[in-house]
Amino acid sequence: MVDLDTGKLLLARFVSVRARTEQLAEGLSDADASVQAMPDASPTKWHLAHTTWFFEAFVLREGAAGYAPFDSRYHYLFNSYYEAEGPRLARHLRGLLTRPSLEKVMEYRSCVTEAIRTHFTGLPSHLLELIELGCHHEEQHQELLQTDIVNLFGSNPLLPAWHPEEPGASVSSEPSELRWVAGRCGAVEIGHDGAGFAFDCETPRHTTWLAPHALASRLVTNAEWRAFIDAGGYQNADLWLSDGWAWAKENLIEAPLYWRRGVDGDWSGQFGPRGTSALVGHAPVRHVSYYEADAFARWAGARLPTEAEWETAGSHLHPLTGGFPGPSEPGIPEANAPYAFLQQMYGELWQWTASAYLPYPGFRPAAGAVGEYNGKFMSGQFVLRGGSCATPRGHVRASYRNFFYPHQRWQFTGVRLAKDL
Amino acid sequence: MVDLDTGKLLLARFVSVRARTEQLAEGLSDADASVQAMPDASPTKWHLAHTTWFFEAFVLREGAAGYAPFDSRYHYLFNSYYEAEGPRLARHLRGLLTRPSLEKVMEYRSCVTEAIRTHFTGLPSHLLELIELGCHHEEQHQELLQTDIVNLFGSNPLLPAWHPEEPGASVSSEPSELRWVAGRCGAVEIGHDGAGFAFDCETPRHTTWLAPHALASRLVTNAEWRAFIDAGGYQNADLWLSDGWAWAKENLIEAPLYWRRGVDGDWSGQFGPRGTSALVGHAPVRHVSYYEADAFARWAGARLPTEAEWETAGSHLHPLTGGFPGPSEPGIPEANAPYAFLQQMYGELWQWTASAYLPYPGFRPAAGAVGEYNGKFMSGQFVLRGGSCATPRGHVRASYRNFFYPHQRWQFTGVRLAKDL
Amino acid sequence: MVDLDTGKLLLARFVSVRARTEQLAEGLSDADASVQAMPDASPTKWHLAHTTWFFEAFVLREGAAGYAPFDSRYHYLFNSYYEAEGPRLARHLRGLLTRPSLEKVMEYRSCVTEAIRTHFTGLPSHLLELIELGCHHEEQHQELLQTDIVNLFGSNPLLPAWHPEEPGASVSSEPSELRWVAGRCGAVEIGHDGAGFAFDCETPRHTTWLAPHALASRLVTNAEWRAFIDAGGYQNADLWLSDGWAWAKENLIEAPLYWRRGVDGDWSGQFGPRGTSALVGHAPVRHVSYYEADAFARWAGARLPTEAEWETAGSHLHPLTGGFPGPSEPGIPEANAPYAFLQQMYGELWQWTASAYLPYPGFRPAAGAVGEYNGKFMSGQFVLRGGSCATPRGHVRASYRNFFYPHQRWQFTGVRLAKDL
Amino acid sequence: MVDLDTGKLLLARFVSVRARTEQLAEGLSDADASVQAMPDASPTKWHLAHTTWFFEAFVLREGAAGYAPFDSRYHYLFNSYYEAEGPRLARHLRGLLTRPSLEKVMEYRSCVTEAIRTHFTGLPSHLLELIELGCHHEEQHQELLQTDIVNLFGSNPLLPAWHPEEPGASVSSEPSELRWVAGRCGAVEIGHDGAGFAFDCETPRHTTWLAPHALASRLVTNAEWRAFIDAGGYQNADLWLSDGWAWAKENLIEAPLYWRRGVDGDWSGQFGPRGTSALVGHAPVRHVSYYEADAFARWAGARLPTEAEWETAGSHLHPLTGGFPGPSEPGIPEANAPYAFLQQMYGELWQWTASAYLPYPGFRPAAGAVGEYNGKFMSGQFVLRGGSCATPRGHVRASYRNFFYPHQRWQFTGVRLAKDL
Repeated sequence: MVDLDTGKLLLARFVSVRARTEQLAEGLSDADASVQAMPDASPTKWHLAHTTWFFEAFVLREGAAGYAPFDSRYHYLFNSYYEAEGPRLARHLRGLLTRPSLEKVMEYRSCVTEAIRTHFTGLPSHLLELIELGCHHEEQHQELLQTDIVNLFGSNPLLPAWHPEEPGASVSSEPSELRWVAGRCGAVEIGHDGAGFAFDCETPRHTTWLAPHALASRLVTNAEWRAFIDAGGYQNADLWLSDGWAWAKENLIEAPLYWRRGVDGDWSGQFGPRGTSALVGHAPVRHVSYYEADAFARWAGARLPTEAEWETAGSHLHPLTGGFPGPSEPGIPEANAPYAFLQQMYGELWQWTASAYLPYPGFRPAAGAVGEYNGKFMSGQFVLRGGSCATPRGHVRASYRNFFYPHQRWQFTGVRLAKDL
Repeated sequence: MVDLDTGKLLLARFVSVRARTEQLAEGLSDADASVQAMPDASPTKWHLAHTTWFFEAFVLREGAAGYAPFDSRYHYLFNSYYEAEGPRLARHLRGLLTRPSLEKVMEYRSCVTEAIRTHFTGLPSHLLELIELGCHHEEQHQELLQTDIVNLFGSNPLLPAWHPEEPGASVSSEPSELRWVAGRCGAVEIGHDGAGFAFDCETPRHTTWLAPHALASRLVTNAEWRAFIDAGGYQNADLWLSDGWAWAKENLIEAPLYWRRGVDGDWSGQFGPRGTSALVGHAPVRHVSYYEADAFARWAGARLPTEAEWETAGSHLHPLTGGFPGPSEPGIPEANAPYAFLQQMYGELWQWTASAYLPYPGFRPAAGAVGEYNGKFMSGQFVLRGGSCATPRGHVRASYRNFFYPHQRWQFTGVRLAKDL
Repeated sequence: MVDLDTGKLLLARFVSVRARTEQLAEGLSDADASVQAMPDASPTKWHLAHTTWFFEAFVLREGAAGYAPFDSRYHYLFNSYYEAEGPRLARHLRGLLTRPSLEKVMEYRSCVTEAIRTHFTGLPSHLLELIELGCHHEEQHQELLQTDIVNLFGSNPLLPAWHPEEPGASVSSEPSELRWVAGRCGAVEIGHDGAGFAFDCETPRHTTWLAPHALASRLVTNAEWRAFIDAGGYQNADLWLSDGWAWAKENLIEAPLYWRRGVDGDWSGQFGPRGTSALVGHAPVRHVSYYEADAFARWAGARLPTEAEWETAGSHLHPLTGGFPGPSEPGIPEANAPYAFLQQMYGELWQWTASAYLPYPGFRPAAGAVGEYNGKFMSGQFVLRGGSCATPRGHVRASYRNFFYPHQRWQFTGVRLAKDL
Repeated sequence: MVDLDTGKLLLARFVSVRARTEQLAEGLSDADASVQAMPDASPTKWHLAHTTWFFEAFVLREGAAGYAPFDSRYHYLFNSYYEAEGPRLARHLRGLLTRPSLEKVMEYRSCVTEAIRTHFTGLPSHLLELIELGCHHEEQHQELLQTDIVNLFGSNPLLPAWHPEEPGASVSSEPSELRWVAGRCGAVEIGHDGAGFAFDCETPRHTTWLAPHALASRLVTNAEWRAFIDAGGYQNADLWLSDGWAWAKENLIEAPLYWRRGVDGDWSGQFGPRGTSALVGHAPVRHVSYYEADAFARWAGARLPTEAEWETAGSHLHPLTGGFPGPSEPGIPEANAPYAFLQQMYGELWQWTASAYLPYPGFRPAAGAVGEYNGKFMSGQFVLRGGSCATPRGHVRASYRNFFYPHQRWQFTGVRLAKDL
């Protein structure tokens, strides 16, 4: 049984998440919202509708007596990958949906949002839990919506700007010197500790063992990446994983995604939500693949952190502020003080870890169709940690496990180095 | 030197063609106009802009003193395949252009149309010829615009209707019995005879030799095609060209494009400009590939006509009315009377011929960049004749050579049989 | 009913053809005979077995009472493309057959050859006709065996020599100056005239119409091709068919197949049956695709001949000697004397024509499974005429229609120019 | 400095390994040894030559004064993937090498073996270490040679038998009941402990943490796999990883590789080194991919073991005998007695683990070109443990990490289940 206050909070959060998604779509034309620039990405319209379908299929269908689907054909169109929910439009065909129009999809959103509000009070707790899951699900799509629209605009020779203000453009500060921060070692616990929401893949909390190691205090910068390029990093097979080398050669990779050459042929600009802009040397490098991150680390005489190393360090910092409570606060042992030097852990860029995305010991997928949410992707991908400028604030936490294939780089991905001690 | 009346007519035609294209785009959303459903097709927006670019690049650039390009970047975006005009957006990427918007493209159209009107009077004759070519070019894209939008809507699981009225839906009449009409044989002349406009590939007029043969008086019908299916036509390798068989098996071809099964699994409907509709047995079958047309003909104990056979017969009928002047008219020898039985020669469906698209003896491509218009496509394609319901009326003539690859079938293609006598 | 002498001649020819094939395989190891270097080519072992299967499946099965198949599984392995003969090993998998061994395949050959000899006398005439067809079929494979083994060795970085003597290495003579030889025009007859063997696709003999034209007296040379390269021929899109340009760019084509650069980066050698050798300037260029031949012709201000032009000229020369009977011989009108200047018409290189491979007017495929022999390949390919150094002498005739796709060039292909008069 | 006895042992081992490889190739024809049935596999001839090249390139080139390469072109042909050693024949082209012949490759082997023997005494220790590495390298290729030749023969419609005796055909014993054996938990050490040879990727030995778990006492059997099939295991998406499901559907996977249907359509046989044979229900299932193993485990309510779980258990058993020393032996604590129930840990089938192939904490690749041996493959693959019937006996050890992509199954792979306690 959910108590009244919790229910109110959840409803408020639901309303707010729904509104935020629609805000992100503002300024996009029906065409912008319809086109799929590559199979990995989805159209804005599809994100808008799919997140709505989630509530319709998993909550309203069971919990809202008398609710008639907005359009019964949408079940086929906007299911993403839930095999248990039946056949669906193949992923690479999502860009064919010029109909329904953006306007119609917004109507679908309103209708479902309203239906949830109407039926909210009477919902049983397992459906309220699905609403909570649906909010987090929608927040994930808020981030994807942003990376996918940047990808679309970045594929258009006109390179149109999406937003005047780049999300998370917090690079005005001066570059900081890189410090190595020793992490805890020995037996540590990682995984979600049970307070607040978490996806199934973050559980169960469990013990793991860390060897002596240190993490870089900040992310790798554009200037450092530029040095890697100038040192022939993209031409030196010794630095690369075998699969990464094959990927780089086949796709003619020679710089981060969205880097652009100036008229003199030199790397001087990049593309992003604001359109094109100059490369800022001390800003963290973004849009690199795992393969590139790994090669860079090898070149730098370092390695990528494991997810356990990252989480152990990250759990000492506050996800929203990035701040360290400080040794003077009660319960913070002096020994943890070095963690205060860690910067950009949260909300700047997703940081590739050296950990494959695999189940934690004792992992059990959630029951029902939403059990397909995470577990079935546990092969071939690597974990990223920390959240990016495009990640909703409430979506960031120490135990969060994001995951992508090692060649993918259209997300806001960056690099934090680590080393053995 | 172009005389005044000719000039006036040309300008009027130009204005009318431009307006017709825009009329075709009415009712399409920005999204509809932007998406490319397959590499062979282009977005409506692209057709609208490319036909405009043609006048800007080939006429205004030289002939309109002081004309500044509407947007200099459009030269890259909207060149189709003219190597001489420099690099251009790859064909399969045309669907990425959510910007410029449809509205902006319409502005581009107006601007160029207006500039042509403004500068028209002073243009030298070779540029007036390019305007005439540009009008015919735009008429070709009017047809492609229609087939491409039908293709887009036909790829959308919602199967939206484009137009309430299907172009050329002239199937209310009763089915006619098929008659065999003997054609002229011996030395005949084909190719454009010099009166009025023609593309370079229709020239020079030349002699060819026809063996005794007959043409079917009408096109193959849906009912006849259905009999072919029921007789196992799509499962009998003996009937097929080797490449056609491989194509059909690889693509799981088992009926004309856009045919649809009813709930009982039977072929009972089709998709078209009006959305879905019932299959009408006596209507001519449409959207079949050369491979299918050839297999059907073999099954029927017949063959496809050559383009010379078709043109020789077609030149006895009036392209606009499809009518035969009749034996009583002066100059029409009695011997040609049988041609009066030919139906659906013009303006119903493009009819596959058994002729590869190759240069006529003595063919010379037009000079300049427009020399790329036709000649460079002369390998691997087959000629179609007659024009379809989507072909502008003034665009139809006996000598017209349309051409497509043998597997393509998203055009309004049909089948007329022929046989040796 | 076949008379005795005809029968004797046929049997002698059969024995001789069988022996010649085996002679071609001499010196090849079991490995050489087993590997398939590309899907277009077949292993020697497969050629040896398939030509044997032809006699077993089409003659012995019906005509040899009591004949038990050598190995019943071979029917699946060695059928090439006869759909009527049932399922078969996919073409691209022919290189997997390391078993049966080359020795075993030779045993298969002996067994079938012997069985044909044994049963020959009693065979009905339609089976004798199939033996004759089988001999011509095997001669075709004799040529393919050679081009395929050259292809295999040319794909091996060691570039092993196959034969010390290059087939048809008749280039010791001095280069001749190119002359233009005017051909007959007006109504001419082409196609097999009924004397001796011909494939179904060479029939029926029929009238066609030739416009005034001339043929080059000799083939294009390596030196002329080199000038084409030096003039930027492979970089100038204007010269190319659209499909050809795409093919050349995608496959990085910049010279004929088997041309090789020397240490100075210059084209100085080529690979062939004898291994590597120096390029001889006045030797005819070989191993070019239709696309290349067509581009070269355009660059040279000429075109390729049609197959009717070629055959009309070729029918004045003797296929075996290439010689012209001369004006003094009875029945040779003075007007044909210019044909005496034509060189290298037969037995040097297959000459690409500008004619698509299509059925002649009135064409009827042979009855039965062998009806699949030719007709089903009549789309997308171009006709070549004349025969090459690898073509068995008795296999060359004026009406012979060889055919390949326009991008293929591993056959012994060359170029004769033509022009309009 | 290597002492005399160690040196003698190494030389003896070298000679013996070289001889064993050649023994494996006995009975193969030149053709068998040349063909590459799929890009993942290599021809026998290539294995024979590449293992020889390893000694030539890494030992003789530096350590054998006056040694002239057997054939300098072999460096290009037989380098596998060592970028530091320069360009090389692309992997998928290894099957083009019909020359050098098998006989010539055997000559190459003798020559290099002899040269190593001749120069052995004077070699510095780092080259002796490379000889030791080369022996282990060659043993790996001994296994690949077997799996690749089985793959070739299994791709031949004739399904030829390779060896009368199937390697490791130790299935005559009765099936044992499956028991669950609890493993050690808490902090454990894994990785090579320094005694004897190990590859770099097995080091450093390090602590890891195990949660409570149990391992199955034996491998999954054919009968159990058959039950999985009958229960619709290959049709139930819920059981599969997303990538695995896509792989299975695209490749029409419905049973282990090499399983064969009988005439009644039922799975009743399999292909292997002995050719075809009946499926034995109690024999361990072989030739399954990680995707299949993972789906089976999920269906069985279990999971795959981690490599740390496997190694911790495996280190209690003797790799050669598979036996457990027993509680009575000195130093074997009573607590380890349950491990005695583990069967088929070594030398039967490689067992998929749930662990991605990643570097151990503190991993450093070997110096020089051989540093490419292992580390660069550390993405996208999964670890297998235990060794198969095709693994040389001396090559089996508890810390050994084999690795393949999750879709690969032409190795002798099997499944041991695990579960959480």
